Amino acid sequence: SGLVLVKNPHLDLMEEDILYHLDLGTKTHNLPAMFGDVKFVCVGGSPNRMRAFAQFMHRELGLAGDGEDVADICAGSDRYAMYRAGPVLSISHGMGIPSISIMLHELIKLLHHAKCRDVTIIRIGTSGGLGIEAGSVVITDTAVDSSFQPRFEQVVLDDVVVRSTELDKDLTEELLACSREIPDFPTLIGHTMCTYDFYEGQGRLDGALCSFSSEKKLEYLRRAYDAGVRNIEMESTAFAALCGLCGLKGESRCFHLL
Amino acid sequence: SGLVLVKNPHLDLMEEDILYHLDLGTKTHNLPAMFGDVKFVCVGGSPNRMRAFAQFMHRELGLAGDGEDVADICAGSDRYAMYRAGPVLSISHGMGIPSISIMLHELIKLLHHAKCRDVTIIRIGTSGGLGIEAGSVVITDTAVDSSFQPRFEQVVLDDVVVRSTELDKDLTEELLACSREIPDFPTLIGHTMCTYDFYEGQGRLDGALCSFSSEKKLEYLRRAYDAGVRNIEMESTAFAALCGLCGLKGESRCFHLL
Repeated sequence: SGLVLVKNPHLDLMEEDILYHLDLGTKTHNLPAMFGDVKFVCVGGSPNRMRAFAQFMHRELGLAGDGEDVADICAGSDRYAMYRAGPVLSISHGMGIPSISIMLHELIKLLHHAKCRDVTIIRIGTSGGLGIEAGSVVITDTAVDSSFQPRFEQVVLDDVVVRSTELDKDLTEELLACSREIPDFPTLIGHTMCTYDFYEGQGRLDGALCSFSSEKKLEYLRRAYDAGVRNIEMESTAFAALCGLCGLKGESRCFHLL
Repeated sequence: SGLVLVKNPHLDLMEEDILYHLDLGTKTHNLPAMFGDVKFVCVGGSPNRMRAFAQFMHRELGLAGDGEDVADICAGSDRYAMYRAGPVLSISHGMGIPSISIMLHELIKLLHHAKCRDVTIIRIGTSGGLGIEAGSVVITDTAVDSSFQPRFEQVVLDDVVVRSTELDKDLTEELLACSREIPDFPTLIGHTMCTYDFYEGQGRLDGALCSFSSEKKLEYLRRAYDAGVRNIEMESTAFAALCGLCGLKGESRCFHLL
């Protein structure tokens, strides 16, 4: 049916669903009227960048006005920022798996309550590249954990549930085809590794703590490269797992900046 | 010596240390002049709240001016916000362990470069309470994980390193004594449980996914209470582990709001 699925039997029994961190709710807002025609959701870490992206989409889509005064739909909360340009929602998610997870739970419920259909979600963000040209765009085929496995381990109460992190293959190919139409836009498909830590988890030598040698770091990153990893960030496994379970066609597209 | 320790032999070899997510650096900023006299650091999730806290501290300390125009020291970055009121720094850390970890790595290096001495760090934030009066303040004696263990498992490259999450006992008692001086300020000492997820991890029935029954949730929370847990949030184990390793006298003090 193309509808966004929630997998929670308790939700139907609730008189009101408050999306706390988005400052939206089913009683305070008419979610179908506000969001029913949304077809694309783009998410990224930084609120300023997601505002700039909404302004860019506004211009690209030729919408009325210059889009400079695009309003933050979640202005009542400073947890996330949300902007809209035509059928495109642009939302910030902060840094790391817990932060993007809270946003995705509430976004998925929002799209469900709004009765949106056939929604495509794309994460656009910065990442560290692995053996690739600086400035490249990596389109993720599979998100992997720090052991290079295509899985997301979610602690549910005190059980560990393992979830798949595969992304939509057709969308991956479609995005690659789009990038081919733009000159000088180095783009590749590869695995994206997701870590819980920016410094020790990614083998950086410039954190407050660092107990490994540069040799050990290089050996680890070489193994990651051999396993197909082309970039490293901090949200992709949770993004792939949650979107996949809820029927959102998802893709993680990372800009490698360093 | 009371100095803040970094445990990274590579740092001394670096010509410049850029604190990326704070938009500060050793070459671009005179960190000892800017921060050398800092004695207290208070951290919390929301940038607006940490701004309000800095304004409150400004008034409490009787500093010149009304403090309303307190400037964001990290204004060049939208990852975190940092404000200062006399010897007190007030910094936001976003939501979840990865987000607070990035901030703490850079904060610890900042305090180290600035040659700060005898710094006390306190996390002040909201949390979900467990069997306690709404509005209570929980002063954390030990941060525990979702299995109620006093440990923080940090993935370093692909190894798992287990770190202690005990907090400073004298500071805990001192904070409790302070709270006793304020009338109608329900305060208690207890364990704080730290989860990676707000919905499934904390047994909430209102996420986009929920595969457990309310009975299973209650059984889990009852076991948590019996293990000494009095509130639940998403940063305390990483906070306790990182601050403890780097010689910061740390305390996590959570306001139970729900």
